[in-house]
Amino acid sequence: MSSLRELGELEIIRILEQTVWRSPRTVVGFGDDISAVRLANGNLAVLKTDMLVGSTDIPPGMTVRQAARKAVVASVSDMAAKGVRPVAGLVALGLPAKLTKKDVLDIAAGLCDASREYAFPIVGGDTNESEDLTMTVALFGTAMKEHLVLRKGARTGDVVAVTGEFGSTSAGLKSLLEMNRNPKQLPGALYEAVFKPHAQLDMGLKLAASGALTASIDSSDGLAWSLHELSVASRVGILIETIPTTTAARDFGEKYGYDASELALYGGEEYHLVVTVKRDKFNLARRVSRGRLKRIGTVTRDFSGVRISQQGRQTEIPRKGWEHFKR
Amino acid sequence: MSSLRELGELEIIRILEQTVWRSPRTVVGFGDDISAVRLANGNLAVLKTDMLVGSTDIPPGMTVRQAARKAVVASVSDMAAKGVRPVAGLVALGLPAKLTKKDVLDIAAGLCDASREYAFPIVGGDTNESEDLTMTVALFGTAMKEHLVLRKGARTGDVVAVTGEFGSTSAGLKSLLEMNRNPKQLPGALYEAVFKPHAQLDMGLKLAASGALTASIDSSDGLAWSLHELSVASRVGILIETIPTTTAARDFGEKYGYDASELALYGGEEYHLVVTVKRDKFNLARRVSRGRLKRIGTVTRDFSGVRISQQGRQTEIPRKGWEHFKR
Repeated sequence: MSSLRELGELEIIRILEQTVWRSPRTVVGFGDDISAVRLANGNLAVLKTDMLVGSTDIPPGMTVRQAARKAVVASVSDMAAKGVRPVAGLVALGLPAKLTKKDVLDIAAGLCDASREYAFPIVGGDTNESEDLTMTVALFGTAMKEHLVLRKGARTGDVVAVTGEFGSTSAGLKSLLEMNRNPKQLPGALYEAVFKPHAQLDMGLKLAASGALTASIDSSDGLAWSLHELSVASRVGILIETIPTTTAARDFGEKYGYDASELALYGGEEYHLVVTVKRDKFNLARRVSRGRLKRIGTVTRDFSGVRISQQGRQTEIPRKGWEHFKR
Repeated sequence: MSSLRELGELEIIRILEQTVWRSPRTVVGFGDDISAVRLANGNLAVLKTDMLVGSTDIPPGMTVRQAARKAVVASVSDMAAKGVRPVAGLVALGLPAKLTKKDVLDIAAGLCDASREYAFPIVGGDTNESEDLTMTVALFGTAMKEHLVLRKGARTGDVVAVTGEFGSTSAGLKSLLEMNRNPKQLPGALYEAVFKPHAQLDMGLKLAASGALTASIDSSDGLAWSLHELSVASRVGILIETIPTTTAARDFGEKYGYDASELALYGGEEYHLVVTVKRDKFNLARRVSRGRLKRIGTVTRDFSGVRISQQGRQTEIPRKGWEHFKR
């Protein structure tokens, strides 16, 4: 019998997907960032759950308040990528017995931080004692089917674009995990990226409402991984021309001998949106994003997978994702 | 600083409730069996999350398939008590590395068992490696505000009633936990109660739709606890006249020296509904339940809390709940 580690998360999700009972009401099941079911009035209920596990998802130096906030941000980011505003959230907490009342107050404060930031209430939850600190967030929103932007939908000729520059989070995590830096020693931009990440909710809502997007995903598992997911779900190839990196990632790379593009491609926990845009609507989308949307490549039928074009040569970008903090 | 065990689950929920951001859309927040927010069309989105932790919520001898089914049943039972049909569910799994592929297949099968039984799809989820086996279910449904039956709402003169007889689950759990019985040695009725519990979904929907109920809760934390919750939420007293016990609980009690009424009152993980009914609609409610609704007492203003009347004397029923399996 294969062990869970050999099996891997994707295979576990595949088993669930293939075993569970299907309903004709299900519009989006397992395999996208969110799930969606049809309501009686024709609209969709959009649902998302995401579990944060202390031992693997909380980097050293992160407070429980920051971790609780991040648990919500991660789920909001998935809703943002689909163009769906969260209406309400639930949280189930697994709490180790050694936690104190102050920890609980801090967790509640962190949940509240995110809830205010993204303007939806956390309306209920459950708590249990458990070995690991876990925070499982479930979000609910509604959408019209024609407004929901899925991973599938990218077509030949579409522009591939992103809502920000990459690499700060992996530079920050490398500083903390491999170089054992104290969080206070981190440059401000790296600290912010790791400890106070933001979901692109307004951006996602505006872009989806513009009608310019054909597919979308967030970059929480890394830019390369997200591009591969779009490529597989849409059955297209993606040719990248440029990888936007942050100044902070480039500075870090130069100082410590890392390639900033590698930091950008194979990072994770970085909550930008990776979208494909109808060619004739790219200017509209860019305007809607107030200039923050950056073209990084095009959708093609010439190959499958993800490649980068540099100095006239095309190279494969491997399907590598972010590894968790501790295993 | 008080430790979590001193703090207790109720206090943790109270902290969350008092800290999180409130929205005018919130119709039911923390403190009832479910939460509810108002949708644009005036209907309510009803949300529920419930976390099952392997070390405390899975009795010895229960298979992972049965545990996964039970994780869903527990949440369905809360929706049932409010008269809400689940439309879709999510599941977040925390999986210890030692689990095998067969375990994952069994978990998926158990989720599927419950999903078919209660006719709603599980449309998405998340999986993570964790120390404990945890299964966190989130359910979504819709309701009209006037049809939602809350814990508050019981009024003087209402009939207190239940949808079944009690005690089999605690007798079964005592056999397993205190007497170290092999599950196969259990009488059939006790085995079924512990390993294959059922949520009273059809019953809950029918009773709520009849308009006869004024308040409702499920009995998952024990009959006594549920009665106290109704009493506190509705600010009324409850006078119990009789405690319906199962034949199996009485047999077990006689054989091993337990009081069947105690088993019934202070058990738990038993998924009946405990409701208050308008006096002039009790016959209607009983008809709707096909005779399964049993009158056990009345709502009163003469005292607060819960009392039982036996041989002309009233005795307090203490607010004791079910203790988890292992601590």
